[in-house]
Amino acid sequence: MPLFARRFGHMGTENAFKIGEDMARARARGVDVIPFTIGEPDFDSAPHINEAGIAAIRAGDTHYTDPAGIAPLREALAAYVSRTRGIEVAADRIIILPGAKPAIGYTMMAYVDPGDEVIYPSPGFPIYESWVTYLGGVPKPLVLREERGFSFTVDDLDRLLTDRTKVLMLCSPSNPTGGVLPKSLLEEVAALVKERGRPDIRIYSDEIYEHITFDGFEHTSMASLPGMDRHTIIASGHSKGYAMTGWRLGWCVLPTAEEALRFKQININTVSCVPPFIQQAAREALENPKTWEVVGSMVAEFKRRRDTVVPALNAIPGISCANPLGAFYVFPNITGVCESLGATAHFESLPDSLKASTSPATLVSRFLLYYHGVALVDRRSFGVIGSEGQNFLRLSYAADMDSIREGIRRIAAGVADHDGFARFLQDQTALGLAA
Amino acid sequence: MPLFARRFGHMGTENAFKIGEDMARARARGVDVIPFTIGEPDFDSAPHINEAGIAAIRAGDTHYTDPAGIAPLREALAAYVSRTRGIEVAADRIIILPGAKPAIGYTMMAYVDPGDEVIYPSPGFPIYESWVTYLGGVPKPLVLREERGFSFTVDDLDRLLTDRTKVLMLCSPSNPTGGVLPKSLLEEVAALVKERGRPDIRIYSDEIYEHITFDGFEHTSMASLPGMDRHTIIASGHSKGYAMTGWRLGWCVLPTAEEALRFKQININTVSCVPPFIQQAAREALENPKTWEVVGSMVAEFKRRRDTVVPALNAIPGISCANPLGAFYVFPNITGVCESLGATAHFESLPDSLKASTSPATLVSRFLLYYHGVALVDRRSFGVIGSEGQNFLRLSYAADMDSIREGIRRIAAGVADHDGFARFLQDQTALGLAA
Repeated sequence: MPLFARRFGHMGTENAFKIGEDMARARARGVDVIPFTIGEPDFDSAPHINEAGIAAIRAGDTHYTDPAGIAPLREALAAYVSRTRGIEVAADRIIILPGAKPAIGYTMMAYVDPGDEVIYPSPGFPIYESWVTYLGGVPKPLVLREERGFSFTVDDLDRLLTDRTKVLMLCSPSNPTGGVLPKSLLEEVAALVKERGRPDIRIYSDEIYEHITFDGFEHTSMASLPGMDRHTIIASGHSKGYAMTGWRLGWCVLPTAEEALRFKQININTVSCVPPFIQQAAREALENPKTWEVVGSMVAEFKRRRDTVVPALNAIPGISCANPLGAFYVFPNITGVCESLGATAHFESLPDSLKASTSPATLVSRFLLYYHGVALVDRRSFGVIGSEGQNFLRLSYAADMDSIREGIRRIAAGVADHDGFARFLQDQTALGLAA
Repeated sequence: MPLFARRFGHMGTENAFKIGEDMARARARGVDVIPFTIGEPDFDSAPHINEAGIAAIRAGDTHYTDPAGIAPLREALAAYVSRTRGIEVAADRIIILPGAKPAIGYTMMAYVDPGDEVIYPSPGFPIYESWVTYLGGVPKPLVLREERGFSFTVDDLDRLLTDRTKVLMLCSPSNPTGGVLPKSLLEEVAALVKERGRPDIRIYSDEIYEHITFDGFEHTSMASLPGMDRHTIIASGHSKGYAMTGWRLGWCVLPTAEEALRFKQININTVSCVPPFIQQAAREALENPKTWEVVGSMVAEFKRRRDTVVPALNAIPGISCANPLGAFYVFPNITGVCESLGATAHFESLPDSLKASTSPATLVSRFLLYYHGVALVDRRSFGVIGSEGQNFLRLSYAADMDSIREGIRRIAAGVADHDGFARFLQDQTALGLAA
């Protein structure tokens, strides 16, 4: 009689949160740690947004709301989405959620039965794969190609799309790669889906990084393409673009009002609603033009950092790093490091039982954390299925420039530290492979 | 090819939220509506709590937190639970959630596989039954007995408990009845569970109304009884007792730290965390003694209202109303009204397809809303399975005294309005039975 439900074993997690335990352990050993692990802007929410929330609290706007969200926010979002996506969206298609993340599980719960196939980007946000497997869907990872800036080709998708494909998940700009999906590719995807996708296929379009793009790249939503609005769930929110991660304010646009009612029903079964004062702050963020100034300077600062990080990483032997057009991540290829340090060889020597829970890049990331005080997230934290043989780390540059420079100095020192790596291979805590 | 997942059809809802649509429809027809439907205090959160949240926002405490919750709040709760339950609880067994409600689904996800049995109070909070059926658990409603103040007997439980019973859900004080489970009954339940419950049975103890009790009744937690802490999940929060519904701050205590990590994992898969400034306000609520003054006067006001509502309802022909010892609900028996108005006879005349979605009490509640401007929630909104033949309505007296008096006057007028009821039976919108 197992205590936990068997199917619960199919739910995954998000190591960017879990890695905190290893960081604490490393710090307890006296290591000073620079975290490149954090998926949130190192900026605070803007004063005009804060004050709107504060005014609502003081006004007693602290009671339950419509589980779908307050009308002023849904209407502000309807106007915003209609304007930015070039489509006509009414407020009754919009649901307010505590973050953009809940929309992943809601989508799986609403549309996916056991045996239904779900295509999702890999590397991708790990909670995609977690919900697919938890609910008994059939996971179909769509591998992103480094050589295409972590995009994919329509042929890649063509090989995966079947008449059992119920949901296709896209994310642009991407966590963890910073890559973007160009409009031309989205057009090819739309044509393929129209040609031979199920009539009721749903495209989950994760647009949480929509505001953070560089070098003139303009974000395109799948919903903007002709005829695709009726297939597309737009999931976004205030976390990344407005530096409001801790406010937990997300939203999604459903293809129909009827589908929005299903998402409302899931809110009723879980969180009831998002706090009204947070919704008021979110409305202010959309309606006060000061927001766009704040977003603009934050994005400019992210670009400045990317322009420091990418060349600095490429200057390290064994590392090659693509130049991403969005988000605040880079996703360096460390195959050379895995080989030169002996991580690949050590991985190959492991019994299969241990191989299943690590990778060469995982070993390198743990070494860098415990022996050189710099924390990054490994490739297999972004979708395990099909991640074998891919040697990447995610570096979040949502950190100040001094930390970035020092962190990269530590990476450079680490990848050259063969003696240290040999000691690491004897260090069970740091290896993290003990049962 | 159905658009929605088949199993999604097994998820229920909470009519206290959904009824808003009918209230809007009634108002659009010119009816002035007094809502007795609302499950939240009509008081605002206290200034000292508000200001703690505001200070945290201004201090930039607006980023992600540990998905389990911030340490100061978990430690404050550990001290609070240890003190009030007379047990020793460490912070690593506590998880912070966006409301107490998410703990229901989390419990079902963590422990219940298809075929596992779950016993839950009926009438009870409808989200219990919703999650049991959604996840393929076997629902075992434990019918609460009006004649025992909406408690049950240990023999009632004995008949339901099997070696497939994975979770037993209790709620005291109760939504929707206001009834409480006396300590003596909890002791009998504990003895029964120890004698022949599964060794790994979990008791979900919903204590969200723990602060709202009357006439000297003292709330007892199942976790307080000898040996029961290791079986009990305490679910509670700040919503009802501290008038903080819209803040969405709940918490639960798991039997072990290992189980708490599973709940943390579900947070990671859904909401990530509760906003840090809300957690700071919640910590202040626990640590500042002003809170207990505020709670005390609110509970005194609820008692004053209960002492008005119960005799007033009992003075209405066809209604009998128990005198509850907790929460802010009464649950009048309207069997006499159902018969005198002809609601029972009309219900019996309906085809089975329509019977499945209504009840005599439902008809009376819709009549009172559309024809007499007073909104209550019907029995079958609190667990459908086994609700047949039970003629009750829930009245929330979280309303000012003038509204209470006027609302009860309207109920009295309605139950005597035979002509009106005859018209109502011809009114498809008000009946709500059309497809």
